[in-house]
Amino acid sequence: MEVLKIIKIGGNIIDDDIALDTFLSEFAKLKGPKVLVHGGGKLATKLANQMTIEVKMTNGRRITDADTLDIITMVYAGKISKTIVARLQANSCNAIGFSGADGNSIVSIKRPVKDVDFGFVGDVEKVHTNTLDILLKNDVTPVFCAITHDEKGQLLNTNADTIASELAIGFAKDYKTELYYCFEKNGVLKDINDDASVIESINAKTYQTLIDDGVIADGMLPKLNNCVHAVNNKVEKVCIGKPDMLFNLSTPLEETENIKFTTISK
Amino acid sequence: MEVLKIIKIGGNIIDDDIALDTFLSEFAKLKGPKVLVHGGGKLATKLANQMTIEVKMTNGRRITDADTLDIITMVYAGKISKTIVARLQANSCNAIGFSGADGNSIVSIKRPVKDVDFGFVGDVEKVHTNTLDILLKNDVTPVFCAITHDEKGQLLNTNADTIASELAIGFAKDYKTELYYCFEKNGVLKDINDDASVIESINAKTYQTLIDDGVIADGMLPKLNNCVHAVNNKVEKVCIGKPDMLFNLSTPLEETENIKFTTISK
Repeated sequence: MEVLKIIKIGGNIIDDDIALDTFLSEFAKLKGPKVLVHGGGKLATKLANQMTIEVKMTNGRRITDADTLDIITMVYAGKISKTIVARLQANSCNAIGFSGADGNSIVSIKRPVKDVDFGFVGDVEKVHTNTLDILLKNDVTPVFCAITHDEKGQLLNTNADTIASELAIGFAKDYKTELYYCFEKNGVLKDINDDASVIESINAKTYQTLIDDGVIADGMLPKLNNCVHAVNNKVEKVCIGKPDMLFNLSTPLEETENIKFTTISK
Repeated sequence: MEVLKIIKIGGNIIDDDIALDTFLSEFAKLKGPKVLVHGGGKLATKLANQMTIEVKMTNGRRITDADTLDIITMVYAGKISKTIVARLQANSCNAIGFSGADGNSIVSIKRPVKDVDFGFVGDVEKVHTNTLDILLKNDVTPVFCAITHDEKGQLLNTNADTIASELAIGFAKDYKTELYYCFEKNGVLKDINDDASVIESINAKTYQTLIDDGVIADGMLPKLNNCVHAVNNKVEKVCIGKPDMLFNLSTPLEETENIKFTTISK
């Protein structure tokens, strides 16, 4: 089976124009089929402020009401997606911007109301890879924003890390799927204040110990849950770290010695 | 050669939620390969007002500055495109939202500055149908917004009527291409105040007479120029009228007698 890379980038790259340009020119050069998933960054909050739409919170959790969904759709699927696609084209990478509604690729259900009504938030139910696969086989690179749909005409806000892992799982029947989460740190750190303290390898067993010891906590917990969910569902491997982990894989060993990142496997 | 329908809708449908729903459910049922092109409607102006961005005009012509381009990208490629795609999926029509940057499908050049600097406005230079054609052959319906790119990373604002005609011309080498402009009138009218005074057929010769006689003037002139440009470049036929012209073509003759529209041919 061919290797397929699913690469997720977040706000630290999207909000920094130079970082985004550098990332995209390197991403464009990556050989083989690939999918890019991008988060939202600060632009949606900035736009909401400009439009004087207040961010709604319940019990400290953000709520996606109809106005917020509109903003997210405009910023993620409009401005950010098309900016990335146009820049990839400028780097000779033939990209197409996708939401989960496009090609009916990611179907979700509106999160049921229990203690909190999260509004227009979707939990992924099904991934349809057939249209995407046709494009990949024709050298087209899908670029996903963090929006899905319910097949009944409703767009839904879905976490970008989850979209990346669900796509990786969906493709695992056809490809050796590798999932890369790019973020601002070198990976999972033993000491959050020491960027050199990277835990280079995590598996299901050590994962539980790291949670019990409080090393994986807060924002890293849902991210790592996505990783473990992926490797438990036929995704070949998951890597977390700075984008360097991705672009220097083919350079001589002596040059890559300083690049550390975390690999999660079964 | 197979027939391909390129259908353009404008603000009168996009701004009216019920009209849009009705249109999309009928559009979804249309047999054979098809492409939808949508204009912008009033939402972009509304958003600009909410963000207190002023509409810039020079010599009575609208200017697309960087802020306006951002708004257009958010509204056209984000909100409107994804709303249409999600609703088509709900009607079992497998759609994907496109700008000209996606799949490198429509390349334009920034309009040169002569008397007026129009800003980020693109004049279409090339249409690449290869990726689109692969999708059409797999029952996917491309949905185009009125944004193109220059292959150097710059998005550009392009007239939706022009996008529809250039796509129709681009596809004419592979399909018998039919171009449909849906708008609020029954077609080209002899008397602008009489919706029954439809000129049912126009060709290159009668076209010039209609201009000379002042029947085709103002806003109809650029629209009709797009039509004539299309039929002069291998597009099979162009029709202008209300969406009914499209959806009742297969009903018995007695029921369609009241539906009038204008057909432009060579």
